[in-house]
Amino acid sequence: MKTDIQIAQEANMLPITEIGAQLNIDKSELELYGNYKAKISLKFWDKIKDNKDGKLILVTAINPTSAGEGKTTTNVGLSMALNKIGKKAITTLREPSLGPSFGIKGGAAGGGYAQVVPMEDINLHFTGDIHAITTAHNLLSALLDNHIHKGNELNIDPRRIVWKRVLDMNDRALRNIVVGLGGRNNGVPREDGFDITVASEIMAILCLADDLEDLKDRLGKMIVAYTYDNEPITADDLNATGALTILLKDAIKPNLVQTLENTPAIIHGGPFANIAHGCNSIMATKYGLKLADYVVTEAGFGADLGAEKFFNIKCRAGNLKPDAAVIVATVRALKKHGGVSNEELDKENLTALNEGFANLEKHIENISKFGVPSVVAINRFPTDTENELQLIADKCKQIGIDVVLSEVWAKGGDGGVELAEKVVELCENKESKFSCLYNENDSVEGKIQTIAKDIYGAEGVEFTKNAKKKISKYEKLGFSDLPICMAKTQYSLSDDPKLIGRPEGFKITVRDLSVSAGAGFIVALTGNIMTMPGLPKVPAANNMDIDEKGNIEGLF
Amino acid sequence: MKTDIQIAQEANMLPITEIGAQLNIDKSELELYGNYKAKISLKFWDKIKDNKDGKLILVTAINPTSAGEGKTTTNVGLSMALNKIGKKAITTLREPSLGPSFGIKGGAAGGGYAQVVPMEDINLHFTGDIHAITTAHNLLSALLDNHIHKGNELNIDPRRIVWKRVLDMNDRALRNIVVGLGGRNNGVPREDGFDITVASEIMAILCLADDLEDLKDRLGKMIVAYTYDNEPITADDLNATGALTILLKDAIKPNLVQTLENTPAIIHGGPFANIAHGCNSIMATKYGLKLADYVVTEAGFGADLGAEKFFNIKCRAGNLKPDAAVIVATVRALKKHGGVSNEELDKENLTALNEGFANLEKHIENISKFGVPSVVAINRFPTDTENELQLIADKCKQIGIDVVLSEVWAKGGDGGVELAEKVVELCENKESKFSCLYNENDSVEGKIQTIAKDIYGAEGVEFTKNAKKKISKYEKLGFSDLPICMAKTQYSLSDDPKLIGRPEGFKITVRDLSVSAGAGFIVALTGNIMTMPGLPKVPAANNMDIDEKGNIEGLF
Repeated sequence: MKTDIQIAQEANMLPITEIGAQLNIDKSELELYGNYKAKISLKFWDKIKDNKDGKLILVTAINPTSAGEGKTTTNVGLSMALNKIGKKAITTLREPSLGPSFGIKGGAAGGGYAQVVPMEDINLHFTGDIHAITTAHNLLSALLDNHIHKGNELNIDPRRIVWKRVLDMNDRALRNIVVGLGGRNNGVPREDGFDITVASEIMAILCLADDLEDLKDRLGKMIVAYTYDNEPITADDLNATGALTILLKDAIKPNLVQTLENTPAIIHGGPFANIAHGCNSIMATKYGLKLADYVVTEAGFGADLGAEKFFNIKCRAGNLKPDAAVIVATVRALKKHGGVSNEELDKENLTALNEGFANLEKHIENISKFGVPSVVAINRFPTDTENELQLIADKCKQIGIDVVLSEVWAKGGDGGVELAEKVVELCENKESKFSCLYNENDSVEGKIQTIAKDIYGAEGVEFTKNAKKKISKYEKLGFSDLPICMAKTQYSLSDDPKLIGRPEGFKITVRDLSVSAGAGFIVALTGNIMTMPGLPKVPAANNMDIDEKGNIEGLF
Repeated sequence: MKTDIQIAQEANMLPITEIGAQLNIDKSELELYGNYKAKISLKFWDKIKDNKDGKLILVTAINPTSAGEGKTTTNVGLSMALNKIGKKAITTLREPSLGPSFGIKGGAAGGGYAQVVPMEDINLHFTGDIHAITTAHNLLSALLDNHIHKGNELNIDPRRIVWKRVLDMNDRALRNIVVGLGGRNNGVPREDGFDITVASEIMAILCLADDLEDLKDRLGKMIVAYTYDNEPITADDLNATGALTILLKDAIKPNLVQTLENTPAIIHGGPFANIAHGCNSIMATKYGLKLADYVVTEAGFGADLGAEKFFNIKCRAGNLKPDAAVIVATVRALKKHGGVSNEELDKENLTALNEGFANLEKHIENISKFGVPSVVAINRFPTDTENELQLIADKCKQIGIDVVLSEVWAKGGDGGVELAEKVVELCENKESKFSCLYNENDSVEGKIQTIAKDIYGAEGVEFTKNAKKKISKYEKLGFSDLPICMAKTQYSLSDDPKLIGRPEGFKITVRDLSVSAGAGFIVALTGNIMTMPGLPKVPAANNMDIDEKGNIEGLF
């Protein structure tokens, strides 16, 4: 069987100018990065902004398990299949982060015969967007420490700095550090730490900004620290906003690539799906909607985190109206939710499947709470038995939702034709009555309770003393009208990763909150969220190689 | 008067494919980064490697002063002027580092009417080479700390790690840090620090590598730490080499841009000129020599550091034969070497000029020690008086060297025609008898003494006890045949920055040494070398802005 990278290397890519031409993008509007990657110019927006919007399809999933779901693969495959049945489709995706690529084997550009290409470039430096974010983020850190070192006119409390540094690297040794050592010429000593770049608020901002002006406005509002009097200090206060925006002037432009079957793909932005909202950029989605009849997009983790934030944060900020959702599951993952161990996954187990189905059912219910029609896509594996597939079909029928088998991993677009037809049917026959789940003006506690009860199925929410203090602080600072970004484990509908399936009778504990004033949301933290991953004992980097001709091995 | 950025923004750039066409580079051999930047493919080398080499011209200078010399400006202007007089010329330059751009105002793409463009891009992320180096460097750091954290099979002594982390940022707070804090899940605590990326050995390697294979070979040899038994640990030992090379697969390709007058420019690599060798990549220079009749290149700081390393390190490694050298000076800088304060620089001062000329004279003598014919270029300023210019002309005549006025800053190529004609005359009439100054097989002490006595004019060299220990360590490890990379202040021929002009009767003290086993040189440290700059009280970043159309202000 061929590996992903082998399949990708055999792709018959078209020059990116031809992909642009398919979308009526003149090559003068493309800034090429090699022959197969391009940025779309910002001024092109003026030419398309009055086009009619295409249909917006969200691909989401059950709670992830170690068995894998294939959300990106389904997304890419669906876009190819839509093209096969004569619809002009675009897939929009998040940009992969470099850090994890060198840790645990696995890229983020789809898999099998449903990938975006050039896969190696997309998984490596791509068009430099994440590097630009790293640089802008760390410039702000340097300006902040320099301000304190040079006299601290703003009266910043070094113990109240909330702006860590970032690198696009899995590097646990940088999680907790002390900087500014070595005497008076070398800064002011203080505790600090590095996050991975995709956890930067700047990444979230890039993905929520409407244009360059909005980007700059949001960057200026970012809170980096508080004074000794507990007043917030922003990037604007440090006179950093212009320089940060300059560093991001190209990163904000959406990136155009293609699928293995030459379907246009816009890959742009990739924020964390816990402390941030986990969706590709609003600009990518908006460009897509003006250029195609169908835009297939995705959100991080399962629907409890990804879809909820896609709807309540991204669609709210971008004034987007999703037309349909695809909920991806696998037989194997549902069996895991039914309690089966990894070793037993290859065996038919209808009892466990029946039990694990409850996880899928909850996500189906959740999507309908937003008024968005949906369909279940079973990403087929060779080990799935006919009995197992039939059980899922029967149960879906019982609750009145369509289910289709997706074989895009093995067959490319051909393996997704049935799914594509079902999606078109939903869009043409079922009107989306999309609305957000809560009102921005609801109280902070109220918004969190709505999410916890309606989406997670919790009985209630407990706020620690610290969390309550933060809520009243943010109310005083005028942030209480911001939407909520839940930081919760992706593995469970609850805040306990061990509670798989569809847990009941649990409460959610909000330990702490933070505000991303530029991105425009309040983060509610439940449990410890890792914002700087580590490397495993044998990192993927150890098995990578490249020969003298530039042929790569071992990357994904 | 227009600023550099205003002049650059008004440039009539040609599409980079047309610049390539001037050099007979087919557009299929170019990887475009927008319309005005491109990387030249590695396989193109096979098509040109048997071409006759053009002439190689080094632009160097007197010891820098705060009055400015204009080496890059002269380099760019000379290449434009050579084109004006009918010669096919290319300028090759170093890539600017982002860090300093946000600290002290001033780009690194030439000035006035002698600039390379697109100036903003070149001074910002350019084609991402430095970001790739940052990523590769820090991946190696992460793999190293991870190895120790996961059991330390290689028996690495955490107190003997010689591989710091890097960022392309001026950030003094990161000079001395402690990493790995926060308990047993967060790595092993140890002292660490960040250098600016251009100080990374990987940058030096990128600039000395012949091709992808040589790059990989050199990366594998980099020493990152020593064991408890004091044995060196390399990137190869950590199984990191393949992954590092993959991250650099595009960065190694030379970048093609153009001057304001559409002369081709290859800008590639930019290592420090103290702890590294301070020249653009060997690949850039070699590609240039195969594509043009004249290649104008430069080296960092004054000729005592830059030219010495260009000859003894770069030309040795790349088997290059320089044909001529241009030594840049200004009346103002020579007056500074004669002891004039900044406030008095606008006034005619023949006495100080006469005294400061000694600095230039020493550099002229030094270039001749390498057998390379040279010419002096006086980069003209409006404040220069006729008497001052006449004095320099007279003194140059006395010692038998040609001197020409360069007005490329104000007039572009037209202002450098006389210089171009003189350079052509040197190349056609005076044969270069280039040879390196010392033999690789000389002892480490012997090589350092040769440089100190012959180039700096020192009476001798003192080695500290620590330095002697290091020398015998490196001898045992088999590194004693490597060339020497002197890390010395750029402001003086001596190791004391206050000794301006042409100091005499001084000794050089070598405090310490380090080995860059991948780059292939031993660094001899005299005095404290700053490898992570800081920001000034009012950083340039504070005055930068960009409007909603993307127009940049305040950058350079």
